[in-house]
Amino acid sequence: MTPNLEPPYTAVIFTSTRTEQGADGEYDAMAARMANLAAEQPGFLGLDSTRGPEGLGISVSYWRTPEDARAWKRDVEHREAQRLGIEEWYAAYRLRVATVEREYGRG
Amino acid sequence: MTPNLEPPYTAVIFTSTRTEQGADGEYDAMAARMANLAAEQPGFLGLDSTRGPEGLGISVSYWRTPEDARAWKRDVEHREAQRLGIEEWYAAYRLRVATVEREYGRG
Repeated sequence: MTPNLEPPYTAVIFTSTRTEQGADGEYDAMAARMANLAAEQPGFLGLDSTRGPEGLGISVSYWRTPEDARAWKRDVEHREAQRLGIEEWYAAYRLRVATVEREYGRG
Repeated sequence: MTPNLEPPYTAVIFTSTRTEQGADGEYDAMAARMANLAAEQPGFLGLDSTRGPEGLGISVSYWRTPEDARAWKRDVEHREAQRLGIEEWYAAYRLRVATVEREYGRG
């Protein structure tokens, strides 16, 4: 779970439901690869990602600026993952780009 | 999964990990009650919520304005649920208030 960050920064909220298509291992490996690759990008602040037993997945990635988030979207290897996601893995998906203005919590 | 909405609007990103404390049934009943109650509030646009097998929960609620989100935070029954969450149910939690500026997707 991503700890406290300093607003303002950019959050990319990605929600999805999976198709039955494709071996789960293949998808999981790609998701893990993308998480590791994202963490190496300039401006990356954190990633919270989970998928419940009912199939809804939510991933929120945090970035210093909107430009940092956009650069990651355009990463060549990431683009190929996006293509596979859209064509094969996701029954439905939605991506929302937001500016975090305040936050609080514990731990 | 919440379908397309019309930016700008407010997203409240809530991440949490659970304690072992409290019967799961009790927590689940409260979470379901809060989801139903939220959906009745002015300005409510949608809720995406999931918790993975590793214990990370992500809930994103969408609101027409920041004031709508704030009014829900102050709801009396919701406040009691927040108190229980902080004192008993969440090992760690973080709440982020964001403005969604654009979105896209399918389904």
